[in-house]
Amino acid sequence: MLGHPSFSVEPWQLTEVALDLDVLAQTESLFALSNGHLGMRGNLDEGEPYGLPGTYLNSVYELRPLPYAEVGYGNPESLQSVVNVTNGKVIRLLVNDEPLNVRYGKLLAHRRSLDFRTGVLDREFEWQSPSGARVRVRSKRMVSLVQRAVAAIHYEVEGVDRPVRVAIQSELIANETVPVFADDPRAASAPESPLEPEAHIANGTRAALLHQVRSSGLRVAAAMDHTYVAPEETETTSESSADVARLTVVSSLAPGERLSLTKFLAYGWSSVRSRPALQDQVAGALEVARHTGWDALADEQRRALDDFWGRADVEVVGDPEMQQAVRFAMFHLYQAAARAELRPIPAKGLTGPGYDGHTFWDMDVFVLDFLTATSPGTAADALRWRRSLLPDARARARQLGLSGAAFPWRTIDGKESSAYWPAGTAAFHIGADVAYAVVRYLRATEDQDFARDAGLELLVETARLWHSLGHEDAGGGFRIDGVTGPDEYSALGDNNVYTNVMAQLNLDAAAACATRHPARAHELGVLPGETGAWRGAAKAMVIPYDRRLGVHPQAEGFTDHEVWDFAGTRPDQYPLLLHFPYFDLYRKQVVKQADLVLALHLRGDAFSEEDKVRDFDYYERITVRDSSLSACCQAVIAAEVGPLELAYRYAEESAHMDLSDLEHNVRDGLHLASLAGTWMALVDGFGGMRSTDEGLSFHPSLPRALSRLRFRVVYRSRQLRVTVGRREATYELLKGERLSFSHYSDVVQLEEGAGARRAIPSRPRRPSPSQPVGREPRRFRTET
Amino acid sequence: MLGHPSFSVEPWQLTEVALDLDVLAQTESLFALSNGHLGMRGNLDEGEPYGLPGTYLNSVYELRPLPYAEVGYGNPESLQSVVNVTNGKVIRLLVNDEPLNVRYGKLLAHRRSLDFRTGVLDREFEWQSPSGARVRVRSKRMVSLVQRAVAAIHYEVEGVDRPVRVAIQSELIANETVPVFADDPRAASAPESPLEPEAHIANGTRAALLHQVRSSGLRVAAAMDHTYVAPEETETTSESSADVARLTVVSSLAPGERLSLTKFLAYGWSSVRSRPALQDQVAGALEVARHTGWDALADEQRRALDDFWGRADVEVVGDPEMQQAVRFAMFHLYQAAARAELRPIPAKGLTGPGYDGHTFWDMDVFVLDFLTATSPGTAADALRWRRSLLPDARARARQLGLSGAAFPWRTIDGKESSAYWPAGTAAFHIGADVAYAVVRYLRATEDQDFARDAGLELLVETARLWHSLGHEDAGGGFRIDGVTGPDEYSALGDNNVYTNVMAQLNLDAAAACATRHPARAHELGVLPGETGAWRGAAKAMVIPYDRRLGVHPQAEGFTDHEVWDFAGTRPDQYPLLLHFPYFDLYRKQVVKQADLVLALHLRGDAFSEEDKVRDFDYYERITVRDSSLSACCQAVIAAEVGPLELAYRYAEESAHMDLSDLEHNVRDGLHLASLAGTWMALVDGFGGMRSTDEGLSFHPSLPRALSRLRFRVVYRSRQLRVTVGRREATYELLKGERLSFSHYSDVVQLEEGAGARRAIPSRPRRPSPSQPVGREPRRFRTET
Repeated sequence: MLGHPSFSVEPWQLTEVALDLDVLAQTESLFALSNGHLGMRGNLDEGEPYGLPGTYLNSVYELRPLPYAEVGYGNPESLQSVVNVTNGKVIRLLVNDEPLNVRYGKLLAHRRSLDFRTGVLDREFEWQSPSGARVRVRSKRMVSLVQRAVAAIHYEVEGVDRPVRVAIQSELIANETVPVFADDPRAASAPESPLEPEAHIANGTRAALLHQVRSSGLRVAAAMDHTYVAPEETETTSESSADVARLTVVSSLAPGERLSLTKFLAYGWSSVRSRPALQDQVAGALEVARHTGWDALADEQRRALDDFWGRADVEVVGDPEMQQAVRFAMFHLYQAAARAELRPIPAKGLTGPGYDGHTFWDMDVFVLDFLTATSPGTAADALRWRRSLLPDARARARQLGLSGAAFPWRTIDGKESSAYWPAGTAAFHIGADVAYAVVRYLRATEDQDFARDAGLELLVETARLWHSLGHEDAGGGFRIDGVTGPDEYSALGDNNVYTNVMAQLNLDAAAACATRHPARAHELGVLPGETGAWRGAAKAMVIPYDRRLGVHPQAEGFTDHEVWDFAGTRPDQYPLLLHFPYFDLYRKQVVKQADLVLALHLRGDAFSEEDKVRDFDYYERITVRDSSLSACCQAVIAAEVGPLELAYRYAEESAHMDLSDLEHNVRDGLHLASLAGTWMALVDGFGGMRSTDEGLSFHPSLPRALSRLRFRVVYRSRQLRVTVGRREATYELLKGERLSFSHYSDVVQLEEGAGARRAIPSRPRRPSPSQPVGREPRRFRTET
Repeated sequence: MLGHPSFSVEPWQLTEVALDLDVLAQTESLFALSNGHLGMRGNLDEGEPYGLPGTYLNSVYELRPLPYAEVGYGNPESLQSVVNVTNGKVIRLLVNDEPLNVRYGKLLAHRRSLDFRTGVLDREFEWQSPSGARVRVRSKRMVSLVQRAVAAIHYEVEGVDRPVRVAIQSELIANETVPVFADDPRAASAPESPLEPEAHIANGTRAALLHQVRSSGLRVAAAMDHTYVAPEETETTSESSADVARLTVVSSLAPGERLSLTKFLAYGWSSVRSRPALQDQVAGALEVARHTGWDALADEQRRALDDFWGRADVEVVGDPEMQQAVRFAMFHLYQAAARAELRPIPAKGLTGPGYDGHTFWDMDVFVLDFLTATSPGTAADALRWRRSLLPDARARARQLGLSGAAFPWRTIDGKESSAYWPAGTAAFHIGADVAYAVVRYLRATEDQDFARDAGLELLVETARLWHSLGHEDAGGGFRIDGVTGPDEYSALGDNNVYTNVMAQLNLDAAAACATRHPARAHELGVLPGETGAWRGAAKAMVIPYDRRLGVHPQAEGFTDHEVWDFAGTRPDQYPLLLHFPYFDLYRKQVVKQADLVLALHLRGDAFSEEDKVRDFDYYERITVRDSSLSACCQAVIAAEVGPLELAYRYAEESAHMDLSDLEHNVRDGLHLASLAGTWMALVDGFGGMRSTDEGLSFHPSLPRALSRLRFRVVYRSRQLRVTVGRREATYELLKGERLSFSHYSDVVQLEEGAGARRAIPSRPRRPSPSQPVGREPRRFRTET
């Protein structure tokens, strides 16, 4: 959309200056608001036209039976699917009895703007009805980052050139019709009318709807209250029925006269609480919100975001689009996690129904990379959610004949929801990804309470899984056969390198953490000898290597396979999964998304620099990036070992993934992993930041496009600001006790308030590796 | 069932002397009649009780949409499923207005017998109604092997101790309710009321029903006519409605007095013909059958079977159960194929709805082994059916990005009906299996008309598939990666040895046949150089070998995998597929069914004797025989290289597969491959018969259980009889021109009518290899 003519490039906003109905669904995702508990797509206030209406409550799902043409042991029987709950965003307007609908009449001006510092979505437009009556409308919408259950809308309509009679209808609507996009496996298949009405109330300016999700039994309550400022002779009425509650405010407006309405919304859900308890909870939250009022809610919102940007901001000088993109990304990541608390952070946050609202490894590997460095408390919450899944994950491991815990590949409440096991259950790396997120969090925080409370248990149960999943071969090596790594164009390989090095880290970290917390380890039943067995397996881990080519095969035998016929593949045949059968993709050398290259990043310690150069070059030639999870990984490793200009092109691709809708599915929601990837490309890539057991290190280096990169990170209760220039980097310890870290081979030590400047060594020039024909990273700027 | 107390051991019959309702469905399969075009399960005449009612017309199927939880390119959209067509077997009897139903009243005597020489199912019983009236009933049923559309039933009821009033209701019934066995993936999922009524007629002793299969549009006609012999004062009425036609004959019988009815049935179906055309065809067939009459139909039947046994009989001395089992098997195989003509031979023949009536590689590799050696014309017909699938198979190959033809893993009409591609589409060996069947047929017949007409085209199109599926690796080897071999406890392996050696044969055979028939090859577009490329690929074929263990891995890397924990697997956890996830089975060394061991048989020329010994021993230890296709293959190789006593135990297991319902699914139909396997175990195993490009050879050797084995085979228009004794073998050329073949290292030459006797060399003693604990072949006789 940065490429879309309706969008302007600004450092702190995403602004649309014309309404293009062809991309309405995409803009609804981009303008989505959330606090991690409640999410609202950027649907137009008046409800219609819409691309895809959406209001979500984290972990409110329905269950649908999963069909199988052939029965298979261990296949999950039902799918959890995110539910579009009661829509409280709707404020319809009648102008002289003509409903405001931008498809009809004339839209004389339009502007929508999402402000990353205020956390408010502003809209301003002027509309002329088919019969010629004009109104000017301004609306502001927020989902509160401070009051978890609450959203609010400020809506104002003004007469323009002659008197008009207006009626504002503020509504709650349940069981909206949702369009179905059937053929794309990445989209969700929305059920019809998933909500069973339980109660409806309308009383003065208030109304509420209570429903129960038909199949999962979850109970959902939505309530609204209103204040308004109106000319005299204004009338209000309210009414409710099973699926609709409505407050109507009728008034007449002279030119320049305004009717303004503030709508307060409160949402709640529960799997266990009674109807009255849930109603009371929502009524209480609503009362507090109304009492707070719009202005104070907006102030709270601004302060919460000021805090966030104060510890997390990234400044990019030289590329205004990148500046905008990274703040857009960080804003969405923050609002997806801020109040998620012990709930998951789905692949699309709460911005759309894509992937049925499921959470994958995207959270652990990508999103938590960003959160751990900027809002570590939210990272801990997300990992505590993982911990809450352990009973189900243990049961799943037992069902699969394994020890420890087998996390679901995709889930909302912890039950496996993947119906295609070769790319679901077999992707056991999810366990090591969770463990890696624990290790990263512990490295970055030294939070031993968390280690005792949740971290050790996660490490132990995942280590147990690996120990039972692998086996010792005749030569004493520890093999993990028949599993699927990150790359979804391969499956069921033996000794997938990513999986094995991540399992190795998992096993070692579990042993180390158990040793550090012996009492808790004892409670978890860690037997004497168990940690030794984990360390032994880690040490003996088989890491295949192709001596002939001098590279790591993604999995055993991978480099013996036929290389995909890239020259014979037409541009319109990407993504390949929609045009070729899996059997063909699996048996050839073609990589959907970074797999071995991601191992080079997350387990950089396990590979020599020469390995990294050769492996990166090899996989560049066969990686097609049909996944949004790839470009950012390639950016980070290209920044480490490859040409910086290539790295920057990947960073730009990651930055444009959603803003330019590169995968043509932003309508279903944003790609949180790719948003995190934009931050990773800048901070882990050009900042060269790594956090290992040895501490924090930086290997910064700027691409030509940027003249300066400045980022803030939180590390072990300190706040650090790093400014990377073309020749030197400056480190400032903004807050916290003395900190040591390294800059290239130098050790830097800083006291609170102090700074240090270090030269950036020049890098050897290397030729840029090639990509499959037509799959080079896109060019977004003429100079790159 | 040989073990079942109700069955007696006889050389030429299967006889049941008591009716056990608990195994009713199984006996319906065992007593099924068929001619390859029309099949009738052995349901009781009176329709109820039933285990599973079934009447089938070869290739009459319905289509059901295939559900997928995740969309995948190339997945078949619908499933073909065999339809239970109009039931013409039903003859109900009212005795003093009480319906005869063996669940009620008393069954005073019961006998059912299927005679392998007459091809008639006899039933005789005496029944006392709840109110005490007695009748004696005799029925005979046949599906004509001579008049393809025709079946006939002779039904006779006799008064016993006092006068009774009886009403015989002879019916045609469409859309019977069929019980559903939901949880077993090997069963079918029967649709409700698949037949749309089109017409019904009743006229005198005649009636007909015409239906159209709802989803596939196939039109089915069933008609009946009757003659009867009755006391005076007998009345008949007939009537018809959409799904039922009925002739009722009412009479009174004094003790000893009889009412006998002969019912003639004719069936027809068509995908293209008009309703009148189909009606006329069926009416014509019915007229001929009625004109022929029961006695002449029975004579024809006997003569057809005399012919069959004259060229095919196997005599076993020393084990009466084996004698019965092999004739039972041969009878069912013959009747499944006799009039199939250009239609498939499904895995269950026309004996039940198992596997949805699909045809798999079972036909090509197992069933055609038997047919080629005993009724080569039926083998040619089956291969011409395969040829008729080429347009669909070519389209499927194109869809998969391949050249040549990709045969469906399971099908009725040629479209892929496998919804689980790792064990369906990926099992590309089906193409080589078809080619192997062509090669075997050409070796055994030298039928060059067939080669020109169908054989070469099948060889060329399958060779083209292999050439496009494999690729040349860096070392010049020809690799076939990511495919599934016969063993369904592994999938998507690289260089599966069975697949590669069979593809090698396929490529070489295509090249040789194209060279022999240059004009036809030219018509098929075989380019200069193409045959050379096939030969080159065959020559360079990669055959993995594990030097450390000195065995062939089933596929690359297989022998590095963990060995299944057999000691930790309980007996009730077999078959493993119902108790463990595929991911776990695939990644470990555990073999469902002969894979490498089948390669040792079909491509015996590609392995040294030492290889065979070592490979057989290795795979014995990890093969669990959860498939009915395994024991017979193990029997053949055990007879070649292993202890003969082990071979005989596998032969017995194969012989008992259906008769003793070893897999607990005989209710769904017989296992034709395993029936063929019983013959293979005797002829290929203890007869040591092999047919190669070099000609016919025998390495006979008897297990202790047998004192003599005599079998007849058809070879290149000759009829040969081989008699194997303990010390010597006798070969007789019953019919045909001079024939040369080998007995061990001797060449034997015979003129018509002549015989030759040869000593059987003694075999080295070898220790018996072990099997997984609890998975040793069963013991059926105390002395083995």
